[in-house]
Amino acid sequence: MKIILIGSGNVAHHLANAFTQNGVEVAQIFGRNKVELEKISQDFSIPFSTEILGDADVYFVCVRDSAIGEVSEIIQKKDCIVAHTSGAVSRETLRGSYSKAVFYPLQTFSKNKILDYSAIPFFIDTDNEESQKIIASLARKISNKVALANDEKRKYIHLTAVFACNFTNHLYARAKEIADQQEIPFDYFLPLIDETTQKIHEMSPKIAQTGPAIRNDLSVLKAHQELIHDPDVLKIYTTLNHSIKKMYEL
Amino acid sequence: MKIILIGSGNVAHHLANAFTQNGVEVAQIFGRNKVELEKISQDFSIPFSTEILGDADVYFVCVRDSAIGEVSEIIQKKDCIVAHTSGAVSRETLRGSYSKAVFYPLQTFSKNKILDYSAIPFFIDTDNEESQKIIASLARKISNKVALANDEKRKYIHLTAVFACNFTNHLYARAKEIADQQEIPFDYFLPLIDETTQKIHEMSPKIAQTGPAIRNDLSVLKAHQELIHDPDVLKIYTTLNHSIKKMYEL
Repeated sequence: MKIILIGSGNVAHHLANAFTQNGVEVAQIFGRNKVELEKISQDFSIPFSTEILGDADVYFVCVRDSAIGEVSEIIQKKDCIVAHTSGAVSRETLRGSYSKAVFYPLQTFSKNKILDYSAIPFFIDTDNEESQKIIASLARKISNKVALANDEKRKYIHLTAVFACNFTNHLYARAKEIADQQEIPFDYFLPLIDETTQKIHEMSPKIAQTGPAIRNDLSVLKAHQELIHDPDVLKIYTTLNHSIKKMYEL
Repeated sequence: MKIILIGSGNVAHHLANAFTQNGVEVAQIFGRNKVELEKISQDFSIPFSTEILGDADVYFVCVRDSAIGEVSEIIQKKDCIVAHTSGAVSRETLRGSYSKAVFYPLQTFSKNKILDYSAIPFFIDTDNEESQKIIASLARKISNKVALANDEKRKYIHLTAVFACNFTNHLYARAKEIADQQEIPFDYFLPLIDETTQKIHEMSPKIAQTGPAIRNDLSVLKAHQELIHDPDVLKIYTTLNHSIKKMYEL
């Protein structure tokens, strides 16, 4: 089973690491960015090329969503599987006569971050049973949590992840902005942030909700609004408080 | 130094635990809810009363924000310190002739959750230097992170905490709602949520931002909007994406 990774970003880096760590040989890493390819090549002892795409049984297209279609066209081979790694785009975004698949790791990847790959859910999708066996078996080499998810389901998984990850991170960024303006070290908030996240391992977030909105504490809500001068931050404040009240029918 | 806790909620429970754990004797726990008082009394070997408030040097008023004023009136003694534990209300909400103080632990408390109190920041405020020494010394018995914060500063700390904790938890609740509707187990999202939180220990959340809004990926943003049918959830989606774009000037 020959595997090739296409791309040199965070996902390519972490798949290279996850596969080699788990005894799955990667035959080549292919892409345009020579500097990044060289790094991945050295880190995980994988040959790289910016010129000639090697022959493989499975190609993983690890590029940004909007480039998947175009990049996938470089694979002219028919008797192979090509999988993209995106949560947001359809399997049919891949353009070619090969078997099309999706290999979507539900995680946020930064290059230099050590991750426990075995805990990362992999959502896979394929266009035939044989491909499914191969793609599932590769996912299981990395992770204990492998599940099937078609385009429709994967879009909802991705949407959920946007709320649970991208949006929460933006709230951290806005929180830090407020703290910075008042010269309050943001580190003070880390134990609170950790505990908030830890809590939902043990109870539903709906049950865990605290704060002035769920107490319908109008005087605190009013006082807070007077502290906020940025209209975008104020909009977040009123929108989320409104949504909290709606969820609990206050 | 005689200490009395007033209240029987989560904050009273955890202060009782934190003080006794660190060798600070609590002379009494006083309140209205006999069932809860009895539990705290048994767990931490503290005498309780629903009738007669004992004599102390320092009283901690651990009740909900809107009750602080009224509850604080039961303390008739003058030569003592009375501290409330709220982030949101002024020190002057306390009504009496005693020395007024604030003893605000920046953490979210659930009754049965084991916490590392030494890592919790305590923000204190007092109306004179002698009280400050006493309150600071009590805070330092519990925590390594004790800082002064007057009413104005504490309000901003509380506002920041609302963004970083209450609002992120609500996003988890809305994310779970989306996942539940699609019969996607929410547990799948926990490694992603943990990693998102873990990341900001190592880099600024502004740097850590990922997702379709910061990539200005209009096709994914449009596709997501079509998946959302609840107007409150859609409002959150558009408001946060707009705020992300504004922060990065996209």
